[in-house]
Amino acid sequence: MKLVRFGPSGREKPGIVAADGSIRDLSGMIADLTGDVLSPAGLDRLRAVDTSSLPTVPAGTRLGPCVPMPYNFVAIGLNYADHAAETGAPIPKEPIIFNKAPTSISGPDDDIVLIRDSVKTDWEVELAFVIGTEAFEVPADKALDHVAGYCLCNDVSERFWQTESTGQWVKGKSAPTYGPLGPWLVTRDEIADPQKLAMSLDVNGKRMQTGSTETMIFGIVELISYVTRFMKLLPGDVVTTGTPPGVGMGMKPPVFLKAGDVVTLTIEGLGTQRQKVVAR
Amino acid sequence: MKLVRFGPSGREKPGIVAADGSIRDLSGMIADLTGDVLSPAGLDRLRAVDTSSLPTVPAGTRLGPCVPMPYNFVAIGLNYADHAAETGAPIPKEPIIFNKAPTSISGPDDDIVLIRDSVKTDWEVELAFVIGTEAFEVPADKALDHVAGYCLCNDVSERFWQTESTGQWVKGKSAPTYGPLGPWLVTRDEIADPQKLAMSLDVNGKRMQTGSTETMIFGIVELISYVTRFMKLLPGDVVTTGTPPGVGMGMKPPVFLKAGDVVTLTIEGLGTQRQKVVAR
Repeated sequence: MKLVRFGPSGREKPGIVAADGSIRDLSGMIADLTGDVLSPAGLDRLRAVDTSSLPTVPAGTRLGPCVPMPYNFVAIGLNYADHAAETGAPIPKEPIIFNKAPTSISGPDDDIVLIRDSVKTDWEVELAFVIGTEAFEVPADKALDHVAGYCLCNDVSERFWQTESTGQWVKGKSAPTYGPLGPWLVTRDEIADPQKLAMSLDVNGKRMQTGSTETMIFGIVELISYVTRFMKLLPGDVVTTGTPPGVGMGMKPPVFLKAGDVVTLTIEGLGTQRQKVVAR
Repeated sequence: MKLVRFGPSGREKPGIVAADGSIRDLSGMIADLTGDVLSPAGLDRLRAVDTSSLPTVPAGTRLGPCVPMPYNFVAIGLNYADHAAETGAPIPKEPIIFNKAPTSISGPDDDIVLIRDSVKTDWEVELAFVIGTEAFEVPADKALDHVAGYCLCNDVSERFWQTESTGQWVKGKSAPTYGPLGPWLVTRDEIADPQKLAMSLDVNGKRMQTGSTETMIFGIVELISYVTRFMKLLPGDVVTTGTPPGVGMGMKPPVFLKAGDVVTLTIEGLGTQRQKVVAR
């Protein structure tokens, strides 16, 4: 299934993509794509729905983030060997974990609103996964059981705040609109192998990032097992898994986003995002 | 007002401390201490309540964390000059920000359950503040308007995961029970000067930390103004503001928590916490 949230920001309703590609309104059945809906039993209930019986959402309706605001929005740093190289960092021996503020999350096609005085806002196409059942101390052979599905994420990053300011990365990763998620939450059963997905990102129509989830250093199974050694994840929590090469800070000279730029990104099977960059 | 949440973990009800020190049940009026309740108007409604008309909660009832699970649980690192010195770190030029997982939060007297194989779990008595109204790009002279109140926090930290593992501090700050909050959310009007509060922490009855919020490097006003330059905070979000000297990793030789230890901590006006340390 491809699940969506549609409507004005902050008042999104749940929906599902029908076989004909139209979006159908699930709000008569469920209030939102909350943790209980994302459980195996909750998703099975949605699978039993005859989507043709549901109201059609008008084409062109805004899509919101494909999940409601999670408690944990975890991100993995430098998780592609050639991206680590382009930033000048060594290949990590263990996953690097940081948090993005849940308040950074926005819809897949919402504007990226630059932080005031931002001069180093950068892009990162990433595969995110969404937790379906509570996860703590999860062994690798049970890891995927905890995944409700996958979505596309742009881990928008302000490099000055991330790396040149004092301390931890969260500063550069957390501004409102710096976490577009969606268009769809694609349930796990629809993705045969999440470690074999092509991914790319363009800025103003020029290809900047090309990669595949195949070259992740730490795959999804290992990440779930690792992160849940020291943190409990809840249904609806989001983990975004790092970016392949081609970010702006890796260019020579570096290139960053400015008002008027348009970013488009895609991952195989997970749809496309398109963001216009605007000043505050 | 002193607001509390009482009852079994995950099913806490809201309460208020009456003039006679008893806890009174607010669950007939409000469902929980949610963001709307923590707004200035919401708190004014509670102030108008005659607490003597409310049911008394039996003495000895468990207290939960004094706020429901927030979306952002932000922490400030090395925010006392002499604590920075004891850890061997330079005094930061700007606030160091990191996140604790909201799933780390526990009640003020709940056990601290050591992470599996933990050998460096440490204590940190801290003043936390709770946001009452949405805060983004807040000027210093408006900062305190966004604070609903204050509470005591033990920023329990696993030092191996925080500082010796690859990457960011969140790994050592986020385990379940590593974020006791409470006993009370003390509303802002009850604390004449949050930058003049004595604080201390004992382990097994031995004084380990003694300090005052007076010696913070970056005070609450500056922190709100700084953090909201790059992150939006929501009503109910928690920011914990750093710890004075006396943590276990600063001892010579270092001392860490082990099963059977008892931690007690207090901040003037904000009550006392008592945690027993247990193994998983």
